[in-house]
Amino acid sequence: MISLANEYYPSRNIRETVLARRREPVVWSNKAPSSSISKDAVNHYQKNGFVVLPNLISGKLLRILQQEMHDLREQYKGSRDEIVINEPDSNTVRTLFNLPSMSQVFDELSRHPALLGFARHVLDSEVYLHQTRLNYKSGFDGKEFYWHSDFETWHVEDGMPAMRAVSCSVLLTDNNEFNGPLLVIPESHKTYVGCVGETPDENFKSSLKTQQIGTPSPESLSMLTQKAGGLESIKGAAGSVIFFDSNLLHGSAGNISPFARANVFMVYNSVENKLGSPLHGLKPRPEYLAHRQQVSTLTPIQ
Amino acid sequence: MISLANEYYPSRNIRETVLARRREPVVWSNKAPSSSISKDAVNHYQKNGFVVLPNLISGKLLRILQQEMHDLREQYKGSRDEIVINEPDSNTVRTLFNLPSMSQVFDELSRHPALLGFARHVLDSEVYLHQTRLNYKSGFDGKEFYWHSDFETWHVEDGMPAMRAVSCSVLLTDNNEFNGPLLVIPESHKTYVGCVGETPDENFKSSLKTQQIGTPSPESLSMLTQKAGGLESIKGAAGSVIFFDSNLLHGSAGNISPFARANVFMVYNSVENKLGSPLHGLKPRPEYLAHRQQVSTLTPIQ
Repeated sequence: MISLANEYYPSRNIRETVLARRREPVVWSNKAPSSSISKDAVNHYQKNGFVVLPNLISGKLLRILQQEMHDLREQYKGSRDEIVINEPDSNTVRTLFNLPSMSQVFDELSRHPALLGFARHVLDSEVYLHQTRLNYKSGFDGKEFYWHSDFETWHVEDGMPAMRAVSCSVLLTDNNEFNGPLLVIPESHKTYVGCVGETPDENFKSSLKTQQIGTPSPESLSMLTQKAGGLESIKGAAGSVIFFDSNLLHGSAGNISPFARANVFMVYNSVENKLGSPLHGLKPRPEYLAHRQQVSTLTPIQ
Repeated sequence: MISLANEYYPSRNIRETVLARRREPVVWSNKAPSSSISKDAVNHYQKNGFVVLPNLISGKLLRILQQEMHDLREQYKGSRDEIVINEPDSNTVRTLFNLPSMSQVFDELSRHPALLGFARHVLDSEVYLHQTRLNYKSGFDGKEFYWHSDFETWHVEDGMPAMRAVSCSVLLTDNNEFNGPLLVIPESHKTYVGCVGETPDENFKSSLKTQQIGTPSPESLSMLTQKAGGLESIKGAAGSVIFFDSNLLHGSAGNISPFARANVFMVYNSVENKLGSPLHGLKPRPEYLAHRQQVSTLTPIQ
């Protein structure tokens, strides 16, 4: 167990909220990005902690991904497989994990040259997939996701050493102001917020439905929002891609609109940032949530 | 009890969703509006079922209203008075009813010449207050309100005969895309949607927290949204005023943002549309929800 004294990013076992300045770079590479990556996009990512690449995926590939999503949700409907998370009050498939292992289409998406190229650039290394999932927010009753930093969870529950991972969200439906788009606190990736609250065993079994542990205090959320001059909601057409830093505070409101929302979520982690032991003596989470075995270096599709 | 055969706007006791064409006018007056009321505003209201009057209230009056809201919420904190509704999971005051009887400031607001003038024009008669409330949606955990037509509830549970009432919402905080603004289906006021589901006794005790009875089917919501070409969210600065028709379908998402949202909600009803018996033998709801005794004709303040 790592003691608090040695732990730069403490959480869960603390009595009061801890704010710590991020110690890692946001963009690890000092080189100019290759020609396929916009320098403006990298700069926006560095400053704000996220960037949107509108309509990066389009045409036939987008339609194939949408069809694959539809087929997988049908295939796993009513399944009790642990890689399936249902909406709290219904049988609707809300999340499916481990996409590349069940779908060639999603395997190839994770190795799309533009996506992989961006991840390798900002992490300045070879990368592997830490976690992948299909996030489906149904119309009329899609549930909210409360504010959190992914890194906080991955550090505590998965033993991810450093902020050297980048999340990629590929929009499979339009994300608009009505269907619970991703909300972010810009620039919050520069501050680590340690959270109060003991982590129960197998916390993931409830936290994937409603996150209650590992959530920042209202005061820290207000302070960081004020510092940023406000929130941003990330809207975009199907096929748009969002990259966001592992420590960016984000969440999303519920969806009462008739418009379902679906996104693919893939986390690229540096091969130099592979998982260690979780903090506080916690047991490692299952492989589908945090890869320790399936950690192949990704190669771009041709 | 009114039989279904004679009931033009049936609901609750039906087996399938009923869609009926609205039979009343939206704007009852045929005359040109007086000079203080914009003809464009009336036209927008007639066509879409709502209109926003930006920054109608400002300066000292706005600050007085905001202070009064703050004072009343403090005064009723922890109160078990029936006019107080708390958030489902906390002691936070979410709704306070019957504002004019507890506050001279809100009494005068309800008789503000611009507000009263608009209501009298669209209803083409003298008016009284059917219901008044302060709606407070807290930051971080403000709850959603699912889609509904107010008229559906007022018709079934209060015996309101006709669509001759107009709701007025005065924004006491900024309403933005993050803090659960009013969402509307434009033009839905022209269609009555009868809802499936028996009404339990004293339904208001739960429906004011989470509405489950009197909600339109997903299919009817999708159809009307498509017909309208989409939803609209009503955003505006504190002091802005929204008028919306009693039959307009509306709702609001939850609020995970740090920004609390507070609005005053006042329903003007025509004196020619006073309440009769509720449908299906239901008992009349309490006076603070649906005035039968306090029905004084409103006179403008000087």
